[in-house]
Amino acid sequence: MKLIYAEVLTQTIQKRPEHSHKGSYGQVVIIGGNKQYGGAIQLCSAATVYSGAGLTTTVTDVQNHAAVHAMVPETMVLDWNDTKAVTNQLKKATVIVIGPGLGLEQGAFSLLSFVLEHLQTKQICIIDGSAITLYAEHKEHLPPHPTQNLIFTPHEMEWQRLSGITIAEQTPEKNRQAQQQLGAQIVLKKHRTEIYTAKQTWKNPLGTPAMATGGMGDTLAGMIAGFYAQFPHHTQTLLAAVYLHSFIAEKIAQTHYVVLPSTLIKEIPLAMKLFESFQETRTSLH
Amino acid sequence: MKLIYAEVLTQTIQKRPEHSHKGSYGQVVIIGGNKQYGGAIQLCSAATVYSGAGLTTTVTDVQNHAAVHAMVPETMVLDWNDTKAVTNQLKKATVIVIGPGLGLEQGAFSLLSFVLEHLQTKQICIIDGSAITLYAEHKEHLPPHPTQNLIFTPHEMEWQRLSGITIAEQTPEKNRQAQQQLGAQIVLKKHRTEIYTAKQTWKNPLGTPAMATGGMGDTLAGMIAGFYAQFPHHTQTLLAAVYLHSFIAEKIAQTHYVVLPSTLIKEIPLAMKLFESFQETRTSLH
Amino acid sequence: MKLIYAEVLTQTIQKRPEHSHKGSYGQVVIIGGNKQYGGAIQLCSAATVYSGAGLTTTVTDVQNHAAVHAMVPETMVLDWNDTKAVTNQLKKATVIVIGPGLGLEQGAFSLLSFVLEHLQTKQICIIDGSAITLYAEHKEHLPPHPTQNLIFTPHEMEWQRLSGITIAEQTPEKNRQAQQQLGAQIVLKKHRTEIYTAKQTWKNPLGTPAMATGGMGDTLAGMIAGFYAQFPHHTQTLLAAVYLHSFIAEKIAQTHYVVLPSTLIKEIPLAMKLFESFQETRTSLH
Amino acid sequence: MKLIYAEVLTQTIQKRPEHSHKGSYGQVVIIGGNKQYGGAIQLCSAATVYSGAGLTTTVTDVQNHAAVHAMVPETMVLDWNDTKAVTNQLKKATVIVIGPGLGLEQGAFSLLSFVLEHLQTKQICIIDGSAITLYAEHKEHLPPHPTQNLIFTPHEMEWQRLSGITIAEQTPEKNRQAQQQLGAQIVLKKHRTEIYTAKQTWKNPLGTPAMATGGMGDTLAGMIAGFYAQFPHHTQTLLAAVYLHSFIAEKIAQTHYVVLPSTLIKEIPLAMKLFESFQETRTSLH
Repeated sequence: MKLIYAEVLTQTIQKRPEHSHKGSYGQVVIIGGNKQYGGAIQLCSAATVYSGAGLTTTVTDVQNHAAVHAMVPETMVLDWNDTKAVTNQLKKATVIVIGPGLGLEQGAFSLLSFVLEHLQTKQICIIDGSAITLYAEHKEHLPPHPTQNLIFTPHEMEWQRLSGITIAEQTPEKNRQAQQQLGAQIVLKKHRTEIYTAKQTWKNPLGTPAMATGGMGDTLAGMIAGFYAQFPHHTQTLLAAVYLHSFIAEKIAQTHYVVLPSTLIKEIPLAMKLFESFQETRTSLH
Repeated sequence: MKLIYAEVLTQTIQKRPEHSHKGSYGQVVIIGGNKQYGGAIQLCSAATVYSGAGLTTTVTDVQNHAAVHAMVPETMVLDWNDTKAVTNQLKKATVIVIGPGLGLEQGAFSLLSFVLEHLQTKQICIIDGSAITLYAEHKEHLPPHPTQNLIFTPHEMEWQRLSGITIAEQTPEKNRQAQQQLGAQIVLKKHRTEIYTAKQTWKNPLGTPAMATGGMGDTLAGMIAGFYAQFPHHTQTLLAAVYLHSFIAEKIAQTHYVVLPSTLIKEIPLAMKLFESFQETRTSLH
Repeated sequence: MKLIYAEVLTQTIQKRPEHSHKGSYGQVVIIGGNKQYGGAIQLCSAATVYSGAGLTTTVTDVQNHAAVHAMVPETMVLDWNDTKAVTNQLKKATVIVIGPGLGLEQGAFSLLSFVLEHLQTKQICIIDGSAITLYAEHKEHLPPHPTQNLIFTPHEMEWQRLSGITIAEQTPEKNRQAQQQLGAQIVLKKHRTEIYTAKQTWKNPLGTPAMATGGMGDTLAGMIAGFYAQFPHHTQTLLAAVYLHSFIAEKIAQTHYVVLPSTLIKEIPLAMKLFESFQETRTSLH
Repeated sequence: MKLIYAEVLTQTIQKRPEHSHKGSYGQVVIIGGNKQYGGAIQLCSAATVYSGAGLTTTVTDVQNHAAVHAMVPETMVLDWNDTKAVTNQLKKATVIVIGPGLGLEQGAFSLLSFVLEHLQTKQICIIDGSAITLYAEHKEHLPPHPTQNLIFTPHEMEWQRLSGITIAEQTPEKNRQAQQQLGAQIVLKKHRTEIYTAKQTWKNPLGTPAMATGGMGDTLAGMIAGFYAQFPHHTQTLLAAVYLHSFIAEKIAQTHYVVLPSTLIKEIPLAMKLFESFQETRTSLH
């Protein structure tokens, strides 16, 4: 198992080309947030926007629209029951997140099926939170879909549901096997988060127990989405998002007993600039 | 009467163990906030989240959901009329707060009865604000419940209602007797807040009249909940929350004529870190 | 015409007595905010709370409740159509503000009549914005009320409506006469705001054109309310609120081209502390 | 093509005259924000208010009112279906913005037609976002209107729709011709934004790819509106708004990888003061 190293950030967070516009930085569609878990979709949307995605659309229960916009006016909102509008938006997406605060209701599963059924091979789809549980529990009812485009972001219990491996038995070897069967990339969130890709296993050397609070996973999902929206669709991008999330949290934890997701999100543009600058400095020294 | 001393903070606010996750830091359920007093439940929820509780759920009138989420996306929300969902959430709770902005309507009393009836011996239940008045006025209609799990947080008038002792006659001795009869822990909020536990009486040496503003009590209730969610269920945890609340307020009051609850809340993670670090320093000197 | 001088602040903003609680700092009821002007009632409520009022209740159209609470969780809200609840709240009020964003609809006039009809001699009532226009246009239909308890806060056009003096003819002498007829205190908002009380005329030496933006008057009304809630019901309290409002704005205007009301409000507790401290310093030097 | 130079800011952002009031700084009416794009109207309204407009009214879907007010209490709101109220407001406007988040529904076109039909020769009308598309697609159904009062703010694709010139063929010469036919001022948003007025073509030397994120255009439209509300209705005012928008973004981009519109907006009053002060310094040296 390899350790993620800081260079993934300086390699990933490139200086933006001068001739670019918001269309150059991807379109993210975030689906989730039932009447109970609207906060999750706020945090995920904010993390996506603050990571630099070009255009972000939040597909959620109408009841959440006001709070989403009060926190993130930069995102657009759609009623998750408006199938036509959601369909149109999904067609244009470069990255999709489904799961934060989605819940386990019937409608939630329909949305997940719908997303998978229409998933394009050029799109990345991050499956988080309750969407992982739904995926695990209804595997046989899922439509055919390109699994190599999927990124699952389970915590250990969700991974148990998805892989069938009990938490106690979740060894790197068994996790690897399960990844091979699923065909998707796996971000297994735990004390030292592990990432299983088709070719390699990675461990995140960063992280702090100050991150152990509700909403932190939604924030990570949003950051991964923001990164894939802008940066190349390969593993390094995923590693960079996971690493930066913990990096920022560790910095905040030096002065905060608990790192609130909304505190972390505000720091993303500053931390990204830091790594872009490192890279610039290095380049100029050559 | 003993004075609370700063060491309760360094002893309580322990460095978080590396191998922990949000489930390690408790599940808090906060019940209150009618159509008039929605702000109380926002402040209480925010204080719980910023104190480091692992997972927080706010059970309140649907009308308050948007404002709760606009302020605290980290919490989850439930309609307080959704008995089934509330029941399920209460089963999982480690700490319950009932009262901030609850009001005195019939439905409020039903919620209080419901909570007490289902209270588990391993759960802590903080009874604040109008829930204290309801408890006092309808004692005979309350279901049987484990009183040693209760923490009441009355101001002097609410204590008069609960104990039957008029404000003028509220001496430590009489308060003690009333505590013994009630069997619960009492946080009597006043100029120098007093805490009556089964074994001991404590006085808070801190506090400032700059705290004399609406919402400050809701904030304290949230901090107590956040502390019990993470730290051991014994008296020191209660003392620590009460002490920290006033400690932060005193610091802010050095530059602010009035300490707004929302200003105080933002400082909680920073102040907690301060005391965690003191403790670390001390340990490293041994 | 006397100039208001900085000492009104050091004399008014006294150190809070140790033995005090939120009940010691008054109950303010703020009435206004129709479906169009909800922002005015947010700003007025925030200014009242940040000035240190003990308890604040915002009586407004239900449509505004979420935004009021998103900005000021410390206030309570009432539906302005809920006559019974409003009546109860008014009975307990020490200070009432009516007018910010009230509008000129029939219901608005009913509320104004209702407030005046039930006004107690110990209560202060600040009449601002559209309530001034309503008062001016329907004088003959107003119920009897104690005019010495009223504070009007007109700008020049509203003063023309109220006094019958055209803007061009608004000289101190004519304004004085109009004040004597009205029997209320007048805060005439203009380049150098003038205050007409029963005995004296004052001019505010402070103020900046950077304050010329919507919502600034609502903020002043809230500050006056907060000051009367805490400090003695005499003219100096009024002078202090008017002076501090401009004092803070001037400070912000040193670095801001326009002073946003919401920026000003956040500074109130800090500025009040500054003047309290001056006073302490002075006292300690005697 | 001339480059915009920093002096347009020191020349435009004049010290406010002492004897002025909010009426001196214009009335802006902002129309847009359907159920999906409410964030656009929040950002545009905030940018207008923070640029110093005297009075701002946001005409949008009722569903957006709470979030607009949570972010910008300084603006007023109107239901965009309330034709009577909108008509009255438009009569009083000095500047109108139509388009941010407007959408392409039938009602959107009706609003655009209505605005153009009632446009007064002394009013400036900024046509942004989907209103540009509607204008382009329904030219033959638009009522007669004074085109010299219009400012279009298209990005390249919207300009293609409006001018009929494909993006690849958008040369300064062709753009100029199209401007002459339209009779309006054009702000063509691109890597180096170009401004086409009746007499001259300008290029903005500032700008950064860190601005390439959703909502940045809505923010510019709001700044232009705020500037025309306060400053003379000539080209320099337009240049100043465009230049300042990029100037602030460049400053933020020194420490932020992506410049969020809501981050930019907060800096407007500070940046405007900076240029006002430069101008003062210069004057005092003469």
